[in-house]
Amino acid sequence: MFPEPSAESLAATPAASAVLALLLTEGPLSRVEMARRLDLSSAAVTKVARPFLDAGYLHELASERTAPGAGRPVSPLDVTTDREYFVGVKVTTDGLVDEIVGVLCDLKARVRHSVRHPLADRGPEAVIAALATLVDDLLDSGPEGAGYRGRTRSLGLAISGDVDAAAGVVRLSARLGWRDVPIGRLAAEATGLAVTVENDVKALTVAEHWFGQGVGTDSFALVTVGAGIGCGIVVDGRLLTGAYGVAGEIGHICVDPSGAACRCGGTGCVETVATTGAILEAARAAAGVADLDFASAVEQARAGNEAVREVFARAGTAIGLAVAAMVNIAGPERIVVSGEGLDTYDLFEERIWAAFAAHVFGAAAQCPVIIRPLPFEEWARGAAAASIRALFPQVRTIARVR
Amino acid sequence: MFPEPSAESLAATPAASAVLALLLTEGPLSRVEMARRLDLSSAAVTKVARPFLDAGYLHELASERTAPGAGRPVSPLDVTTDREYFVGVKVTTDGLVDEIVGVLCDLKARVRHSVRHPLADRGPEAVIAALATLVDDLLDSGPEGAGYRGRTRSLGLAISGDVDAAAGVVRLSARLGWRDVPIGRLAAEATGLAVTVENDVKALTVAEHWFGQGVGTDSFALVTVGAGIGCGIVVDGRLLTGAYGVAGEIGHICVDPSGAACRCGGTGCVETVATTGAILEAARAAAGVADLDFASAVEQARAGNEAVREVFARAGTAIGLAVAAMVNIAGPERIVVSGEGLDTYDLFEERIWAAFAAHVFGAAAQCPVIIRPLPFEEWARGAAAASIRALFPQVRTIARVR
Repeated sequence: MFPEPSAESLAATPAASAVLALLLTEGPLSRVEMARRLDLSSAAVTKVARPFLDAGYLHELASERTAPGAGRPVSPLDVTTDREYFVGVKVTTDGLVDEIVGVLCDLKARVRHSVRHPLADRGPEAVIAALATLVDDLLDSGPEGAGYRGRTRSLGLAISGDVDAAAGVVRLSARLGWRDVPIGRLAAEATGLAVTVENDVKALTVAEHWFGQGVGTDSFALVTVGAGIGCGIVVDGRLLTGAYGVAGEIGHICVDPSGAACRCGGTGCVETVATTGAILEAARAAAGVADLDFASAVEQARAGNEAVREVFARAGTAIGLAVAAMVNIAGPERIVVSGEGLDTYDLFEERIWAAFAAHVFGAAAQCPVIIRPLPFEEWARGAAAASIRALFPQVRTIARVR
Repeated sequence: MFPEPSAESLAATPAASAVLALLLTEGPLSRVEMARRLDLSSAAVTKVARPFLDAGYLHELASERTAPGAGRPVSPLDVTTDREYFVGVKVTTDGLVDEIVGVLCDLKARVRHSVRHPLADRGPEAVIAALATLVDDLLDSGPEGAGYRGRTRSLGLAISGDVDAAAGVVRLSARLGWRDVPIGRLAAEATGLAVTVENDVKALTVAEHWFGQGVGTDSFALVTVGAGIGCGIVVDGRLLTGAYGVAGEIGHICVDPSGAACRCGGTGCVETVATTGAILEAARAAAGVADLDFASAVEQARAGNEAVREVFARAGTAIGLAVAAMVNIAGPERIVVSGEGLDTYDLFEERIWAAFAAHVFGAAAQCPVIIRPLPFEEWARGAAAASIRALFPQVRTIARVR
């Protein structure tokens, strides 16, 4: 049995929810500091924190006296990270491998354990069967065997494509070949957990905003480069979802009106130049080797084959232009560019920066762009973070709750 | 003397502010309907509306019985539009004419009177001198001579360029040649009015969101085409301002990597193809007439000069691509495309739609794009709307206040 009361039942008021969320993302913090950040009285913070302390979600750190004669000693509060665990799962079909990747995270979205299982096929039945086994593996992986099971009740699922997060339905996933799959309900039945379903890029954006480079920002963006070009944008503390479910869709910006036809119907879209698949196809043509594989394309580029190098460089330009367009339009405070495509970052780097610098407008050039590779568990961790985030739907902004 | 109490002193609570804002933008409405829309009790709406009724900002319409036996008759509330007036002024320097355009608007941002004055030069002193005269003209223009003066205390100023609205300072306006001009303070001293300063495109976006095509939407965008290419975006009921003061900046998206150099340092920006100036320059080259003026370029295109027609068509493509990129990234519910450049809309139309349709992604194609010309007073009306909006800073969303 999961130990009651649950965090979200305690976080029913905006103030309680804001206090817990602030500690999750930026704790430990003193009550005084939290009061200042949340524009509450210290007494209100103390009152709100009490039930979380009683329920084991928070604990007091040892007192610290900040300066001689500075008054009463301060006992910062922090989240008790192993009070509750979360499973995050990413279904991966990058054209090379079909597998599901799972992680078990604590309350601060730190990965405690990770597992990957191959998929027999891409159908929902095969995915659900693999999911059930994978969740069992994770819940039984604790230090004392069953250590995680009793404290885990939430599962986050990250899936590429058009996801109706509120309904838990994958409306369309071209890569999985799914249309209108109620994966949330199926996963809940198979695992007994409460399931959050989210688009994979959006889940990763939430993870970075709450627990990564986005902490402390009101507006933030994450760009992923790989089998697709994705982007999640946070404005005013909330993920942009778009009035028609489309937002942050930078992959189909036109970067070359005389370019190649795109599967979307457009011409010269970013995705016709910068996805792993587009790069491979162009590299084959450039090298004159019809069955060149991606690793060999990378090898040839690094070895100095100028035609193949130019294929990667063109991808870099397209990515830089797309990021600049997004920054000019949405105005984020900070950006992370990531994704499995960045394993070959050395081949893109120069052109990404040149194109970005040439087209970012005015003071937006101050926006820090953080480029970093993406370990395979990160996507699954994003799913876990989305399930943590789902406990606090009413919180808009972590950094500057008003 | 302005009759007290003022609207904003009565609108000090979120509920009062939301009630007045809803009536301003969508009134008349019954108390029951407002209660439903604002998630308040009818009693709360009644209580909140009372002081506004007493102060003359609201009035009750005659009772209407909606259906036989439908219970107590309903008396909708509406804003008393002539309780207060607002002056809006746009400083216009489009390369052809330097002038200031002013309007006097009522509480629902309806234009009651408009005036335009030429500018002796573009310096702040000349603008302030012309402004003082223009404001006097407007305030004295009422039906009984001084009818507006006693009920007007707010002035909105719309200026192209980088505007620090909070400080009332124009940081940089390339067209006016201004840098760090405290125009808000100067205008307040010259007119005795409370001054709101806003970027012209942002002011127009606010006007359309509160009083035009944006009413009833949570997210909305306005694109202007003319001497520059501008765009304002509303997300979740608030104008995007960007962490570094840059947002909605679609004019420097790259639409052609092999295109012309842009003044911003980039290559093939939308503005190198689609501004009035860029079109004129390209039309001169296409027609082989070095001193061709804009009207003649339009004439030649309409008369069937294919080279000149293609200049306008290329501008249409660039605009369509930029609008599609913005919709894909920001996901607005509705868009207005406007601006003085659209006087020649017949020459752009086909390509705007083709490029937009080819690059808007998935379900975002459902986003209505409303294309319409922009009467000269609209920019000034935008400034007046910004000064109305400034009375209610705490209201996020008109459509769906929660």
